[in-house]
Amino acid sequence: MELIVQKFGGSSVANKERIFNVARIITKTYQEGKNVVAVVSAQGDTTDDLIAKAAEINPHASKREMDALLSSGEQISSALLAMAIEALGFPVVSLNGRQAGFVTDSSYTKARIKRVITERIEREIDKRRIVIVTGFQGINRYDDITTLGRGGSDTSAVAIAAAMKADLCQIYTDVDGVYTADPRIVKNARKLSEISFDEMLELASCGAQVLHNRSVEMAKKYNVNLEVCSSLEDKPGTKVKEVTKMEQMLIKGVAKDDDVVRIAVIGLPDKPGIAFRIFQLLANKKINVDIILQSIGRDGTKDISFTVPSDSKELAMETLSEHKELLDAAHIEYDDNVTKVSIVGAGMQSNPGVAAKMFEALYEADINIQMISTSEIKISVLIAKELGVKAMNALSNAFIG
Amino acid sequence: MELIVQKFGGSSVANKERIFNVARIITKTYQEGKNVVAVVSAQGDTTDDLIAKAAEINPHASKREMDALLSSGEQISSALLAMAIEALGFPVVSLNGRQAGFVTDSSYTKARIKRVITERIEREIDKRRIVIVTGFQGINRYDDITTLGRGGSDTSAVAIAAAMKADLCQIYTDVDGVYTADPRIVKNARKLSEISFDEMLELASCGAQVLHNRSVEMAKKYNVNLEVCSSLEDKPGTKVKEVTKMEQMLIKGVAKDDDVVRIAVIGLPDKPGIAFRIFQLLANKKINVDIILQSIGRDGTKDISFTVPSDSKELAMETLSEHKELLDAAHIEYDDNVTKVSIVGAGMQSNPGVAAKMFEALYEADINIQMISTSEIKISVLIAKELGVKAMNALSNAFIG
Repeated sequence: MELIVQKFGGSSVANKERIFNVARIITKTYQEGKNVVAVVSAQGDTTDDLIAKAAEINPHASKREMDALLSSGEQISSALLAMAIEALGFPVVSLNGRQAGFVTDSSYTKARIKRVITERIEREIDKRRIVIVTGFQGINRYDDITTLGRGGSDTSAVAIAAAMKADLCQIYTDVDGVYTADPRIVKNARKLSEISFDEMLELASCGAQVLHNRSVEMAKKYNVNLEVCSSLEDKPGTKVKEVTKMEQMLIKGVAKDDDVVRIAVIGLPDKPGIAFRIFQLLANKKINVDIILQSIGRDGTKDISFTVPSDSKELAMETLSEHKELLDAAHIEYDDNVTKVSIVGAGMQSNPGVAAKMFEALYEADINIQMISTSEIKISVLIAKELGVKAMNALSNAFIG
Repeated sequence: MELIVQKFGGSSVANKERIFNVARIITKTYQEGKNVVAVVSAQGDTTDDLIAKAAEINPHASKREMDALLSSGEQISSALLAMAIEALGFPVVSLNGRQAGFVTDSSYTKARIKRVITERIEREIDKRRIVIVTGFQGINRYDDITTLGRGGSDTSAVAIAAAMKADLCQIYTDVDGVYTADPRIVKNARKLSEISFDEMLELASCGAQVLHNRSVEMAKKYNVNLEVCSSLEDKPGTKVKEVTKMEQMLIKGVAKDDDVVRIAVIGLPDKPGIAFRIFQLLANKKINVDIILQSIGRDGTKDISFTVPSDSKELAMETLSEHKELLDAAHIEYDDNVTKVSIVGAGMQSNPGVAAKMFEALYEADINIQMISTSEIKISVLIAKELGVKAMNALSNAFIG
């Protein structure tokens, strides 16, 4: 019997009407003779509300207790969704992260799934029950609750699909697929019928918030048949696959990531090993560094700039400031008035004109580029935050329109 | 090292200020060189809010899903309390029902604790950590979450105290001890410095909502040193013990239970086995029956009346109506405009004047008695609901004032 994993985000289960909407999607699939495991996020703003509640009590609460707190959100949404499916007259059972067998490492608030022990889910499936699973959470080797970090429910869904060799993993969102750019920002954005894992990965890491990056990595690794579809409309979504049919379009998407800060370490001595030390310090604190730029400064010194996610700003500044003398840096500064705009497309590498065309489009829109980063299938530029929307439209017109 | 179990109810952790108040009670005890396990209920109206949320989705939701839902309440309050204790600078860990080792039977929404596997708690205590435990919940043999029913956190606390042979189990409430009657209702109510388990049991089952009945039963069975004290004021509470010092006062308390319905099965044939059948039907549905009255009806038939808790009314009426023909009853009716008023005291049995004095006091207050029930240490009467407060004051004046 076919097995479908379906994942529903927080806005898809935000209230009674939406919960029943999701219940109908699930039971329709079940009635088609398929087995269904549904992974669900916390309702609407629940997670944010819980974080605010914790901050009121203790802004420096331990991450272990944060995870114990936050995991309650999915426990509520999964039970309510199961109750809705019961109301529609179908056999169903809700399982929390532990019951569903999610074993993670111990990095509280951003744990990684080590394995999924699917015995319990399989037992329930064998009884032809619909299984509702809490996304975003698991337990570690100490038997304590962990959470996977923002958007972790996507990863939960793909992990179950991989572990159970599901026929399809559908990620339901409030958009109806993957677009060339955020349709709320860019007028001529187009929906893609297919996209490759690599392109999806670049789009995700460039700020397109459709799929959680780790979920795409995992889907690629285990070759999970992934589909992004709408929980509000019943029409085909976007298939995410290993290889896609060649399309006319070279550039698959334009993305913007506002969640980024540029940090500059100024006046470093121009000798070997300095960059290594900086990035080792940051790596020790598990800070992800994105675009890196090294330039010659005044008086034979050099400057190293790089971008980090906004929520790593404080930790990065703190870590570097503590070691300012060791690094022999003149000073360390940051700029959070920046945004990263990217174009993504698999054919890019073999088309040397793409970068030039991108820079030209930005130049014509009077947008100054602060940093540049390229990979096989994307080009990212760092620009002033207030120019982000203008840049996306300019690039969309140049490459897609 | 001394071990103290402290239990805090939902109103004691309803907001930030109260959570810190509780955190200070706990850390004060810890600083006195004692080990502390604190059992906590869900914040304020959380449980009621979750029940309302479920009812909106599915008024007939399965009890298994109800328990999965409701257990989130204590998970939130226990994590927040742990965060407050972290903020005060003490080592602490929160554990949910499963982590704390609560193994229950499978009667969802009213499960009974079978045993507490205290290894994890002991391991944390050995590290001199304060341990916060979610009350009200456990897991059953199927690895599913269960809850213990209303007031179950008291039972959780006593169960841990019993399993760990704690030196003291303190139940913190918003009253400062056990009173002869509810001080909000009866003007001359007095606080007791001591009360016996049996008296406390009768008071609890007669509607005094200070301690959950099962918690007192369990404390009596395992001889747990119990104390009821105030989370708002730092003064001695009421000790609940096996035997108390003889006090002048014969009657320890006057209690009222509005949560009661009288059901009458009318016109039964006057032959053996009828009462047995009725109460077996109810027992099969796990309905608790309290006062029972059998009387001779018209035409040689008999009537059987009894009281059940309000929330069993529908199930009891349904069950009996289904079997009306089998029982050969003329009709079945209920009256929910009743209340049960009781006096409780250990010396009662050897003082035959007590019942007469009680009935006289009610007679003089012009209160009609519908049913009477007595035990070794209490006398209960069923009267019209609107006369409950009047009856309590009349009895308090007669016996205590």
